[in-house]
Amino acid sequence: MFEAAEVGHKIEKSVFNRAVPKLRADLLDVQYRLKENGKFPVIVLISGVRGAGKGETVNLLNEWMDPRHIVTYAFDNPSDEERERPPMWRYWRALPPKGKIGILFGSWYTAPIIDRVFKTTTSGNLVRSIEEINHFEKMLADEGALILKFWFHLSRQAQKKRLKALASDPETRWRVTERDWNFFKVYDRFYRVSEETLRETSTAAAPWIVVEGQDPRYRYLTVGKTLLEAMRKRLDAQANRRDPVSQAAPIIRPIDKRDVLNQLDLSKSLTESKYKSELLTWQGRLNRLSRDAKFPQLSVAVAFEGMDAAGKGSTIRRITGGLDARYYNVIPVASPTDEERAQPYLWRFWRHLPRKGRVTIYDRTWYGRVLVERIEGFCSETDWMRAYSEINDFEEQLERSNTVLCKFWVQISKDEQLRRFKERERMRFKRFKITEEDWRNRKKWDLYQAAAADMIEHTSTDIAPWTLVEANDKKYARIKVLKTICKRIERALDEL
Amino acid sequence: MFEAAEVGHKIEKSVFNRAVPKLRADLLDVQYRLKENGKFPVIVLISGVRGAGKGETVNLLNEWMDPRHIVTYAFDNPSDEERERPPMWRYWRALPPKGKIGILFGSWYTAPIIDRVFKTTTSGNLVRSIEEINHFEKMLADEGALILKFWFHLSRQAQKKRLKALASDPETRWRVTERDWNFFKVYDRFYRVSEETLRETSTAAAPWIVVEGQDPRYRYLTVGKTLLEAMRKRLDAQANRRDPVSQAAPIIRPIDKRDVLNQLDLSKSLTESKYKSELLTWQGRLNRLSRDAKFPQLSVAVAFEGMDAAGKGSTIRRITGGLDARYYNVIPVASPTDEERAQPYLWRFWRHLPRKGRVTIYDRTWYGRVLVERIEGFCSETDWMRAYSEINDFEEQLERSNTVLCKFWVQISKDEQLRRFKERERMRFKRFKITEEDWRNRKKWDLYQAAAADMIEHTSTDIAPWTLVEANDKKYARIKVLKTICKRIERALDEL
Repeated sequence: MFEAAEVGHKIEKSVFNRAVPKLRADLLDVQYRLKENGKFPVIVLISGVRGAGKGETVNLLNEWMDPRHIVTYAFDNPSDEERERPPMWRYWRALPPKGKIGILFGSWYTAPIIDRVFKTTTSGNLVRSIEEINHFEKMLADEGALILKFWFHLSRQAQKKRLKALASDPETRWRVTERDWNFFKVYDRFYRVSEETLRETSTAAAPWIVVEGQDPRYRYLTVGKTLLEAMRKRLDAQANRRDPVSQAAPIIRPIDKRDVLNQLDLSKSLTESKYKSELLTWQGRLNRLSRDAKFPQLSVAVAFEGMDAAGKGSTIRRITGGLDARYYNVIPVASPTDEERAQPYLWRFWRHLPRKGRVTIYDRTWYGRVLVERIEGFCSETDWMRAYSEINDFEEQLERSNTVLCKFWVQISKDEQLRRFKERERMRFKRFKITEEDWRNRKKWDLYQAAAADMIEHTSTDIAPWTLVEANDKKYARIKVLKTICKRIERALDEL
Repeated sequence: MFEAAEVGHKIEKSVFNRAVPKLRADLLDVQYRLKENGKFPVIVLISGVRGAGKGETVNLLNEWMDPRHIVTYAFDNPSDEERERPPMWRYWRALPPKGKIGILFGSWYTAPIIDRVFKTTTSGNLVRSIEEINHFEKMLADEGALILKFWFHLSRQAQKKRLKALASDPETRWRVTERDWNFFKVYDRFYRVSEETLRETSTAAAPWIVVEGQDPRYRYLTVGKTLLEAMRKRLDAQANRRDPVSQAAPIIRPIDKRDVLNQLDLSKSLTESKYKSELLTWQGRLNRLSRDAKFPQLSVAVAFEGMDAAGKGSTIRRITGGLDARYYNVIPVASPTDEERAQPYLWRFWRHLPRKGRVTIYDRTWYGRVLVERIEGFCSETDWMRAYSEINDFEEQLERSNTVLCKFWVQISKDEQLRRFKERERMRFKRFKITEEDWRNRKKWDLYQAAAADMIEHTSTDIAPWTLVEANDKKYARIKVLKTICKRIERALDEL
């Protein structure tokens, strides 16, 4: 991959000076068109070898364009808030919203490559990282992001010359550190590992552009023109495209009408006295677990889905009843805010991920996309179909960063829902809990049940299984939920 | 203040059990009314002596109400991201949005009281902290927040008894630490310092409610009922109130029409050659300053205001031209997002405050409130009038946390604006820079000038002076801005 970037590309000064004024005007033009259009973000990754002019290029892009609509992020060591979340959290934080250009200096490639060069990970780890990156970038592209990945390359000889030149000039000496020379010592290994990584991650949706870093004028023009052409092409395509008509996708039910939900035994119940003693037992156990000496190494995420009036809220109160309010947070998931709408779908769940030692309870979740959004046609069929694998990736990352994830589908019968709706209408402080929308959703009961069964089939994985909760009897449901959470935390503590 | 909380308040179990069901239903009711209303946040502060049942009370409030619409924050040691900003940043981060209840466990009172008890600060520091807190809470109240501050008190004897009881029960032993006993040793001093603080911060807008912590039933009912009554009263008042009609406030110009702006000599200019050499000099100087060994101890915030087409954008590009893109951030201030609208006015500027070693450039600023919002009637007269002192408080906090703040008013003449508007309409890549709104604003030229003069008069303070920039000649303006920034950073570095 890198041979083409060692041929000694060069641009004459006169050619450069003639080209720049037009390029700048054109870049400003597409930048403002992007802002007006507001429908997608541009994500520019700047990576490559040291001394190949990455910093200068980023500075120049900011100079050529309007820096007010560019967000430049340089990733240094993670902060403590970042270290307590899955590694990708800091990149989710830095994603530019639609209509903006985000320049990421250092990226999700840095750690996998460096770790492998210095052999702190195995080649298997690198393969896994590459696969994760491909999934992540595919998701970004599917969400509409324009992704440009620049790799700045220098031959061994050119890098040595460049570092020496920088080190001998008093003005730039500070820029060459011992770390740079340590990197230079492993040039060949770095070459091989990055080539493998680039080869495996150069996809149609997010291709690598390798730039020879030796001649400043060549690299500036290459990056500037590539960025210009890619943005122009996308903007033109957008202008000619009509928004896809969103429509409710047909849902196909199994021919014999049997699914995981309608096979549940909803008559399961507990007596009042049994419930009371079990509640004490399991809330006490949960409380003790949350005070375990090793608990601060874990995060806990509890996710609830289920039909309206299934008892999600009251079950959540039985969980929080066993916890100290200082260490949990309940996130009721409603419509996204406008800042959330300007980001990929999962962004609004990433932003609330708990720090270590904390419990976050989601009342409705990232599964909204394959339930309400699918059924009401709020997103296209492609969007919700790809959600299954995006969600699996997300949950895998949670699991791997020591997050105990418990997912509950709380199931009631259609008759039981009717009974509860009527009760809510009668009771004073429950009247806020029943709206016109609830009655409208009820009419689509069968569709929701089918979508839920479909969802469970696709996303009940080994590492993040769904727990189906028989909830016609609230007492039975609450104990089952509490017990499941306790057992999952216990297992995670044992495995630490 | 505390005597009334040492009388041995007690509630019988039977009384308590009778009261609770109604109280819970009522609390849920006001909580949902708050959510529906969505016009103000409720901020509940939980403070006081150790062992007085603060934690249990917070847990109970979460149990009695719907935890999905309560946000509980416990402030432990600040994270590194928090330590690199002014001390109040972490509290701004934790403010509940309109329609929600935020329970803050530990608060802006903790550090001032503890520091004074253990004598790490002087009594003068405490007085200053108290004044700052009063300003902050007044701002919150003016922004509509309902603030309830609970102080949990125990007599010396009661605290000793309570700590001993906790320490002797194996179930609760872990809750009593050496730190608790160290605090107990300075009980009398803690008593005096907190009494002084409470006395001086118990205002009409944010009163303290001292709660005797000895009897659990008494403290639960007291907190629950106080919260209920305060919320109910506010909701009822809101329901009866019509929104104030926002209107443009009259602006009174000095009788002789002289002000700081129209006295500027706009003919100041630089020749092209002088400009080029000065630009090199000052950009180079800025660059070297940003690489100073002590620079990572500073933050820099640069604020731009001025009429449309005054040259803010192009001046910003001359600043960023001297900096490394990794370390600056340009914030173009446009209309607030919906998340920002659910918070106090200054929230959206606090959230972007730079970490140490970074430069943030605001293209338009927190002064929008006393310029565009005042003139267009987007806020009430009381709102923009109180903005002056709120802004001064904000800037004082920046200054004290080693943030170099440079505020520029970029001034052009009305004729020069017209010339630039016409030029923008002609030039291809500038066409995005001129809108109908710009022409509309131009019609209000005199009003904007008068509001700006008024603003400068009220907010050009010793620690955060305005620099007025004569900008009919862009070259002159850019050099003046660059020079000012360099000098301010130099002074700050010298003073470190």
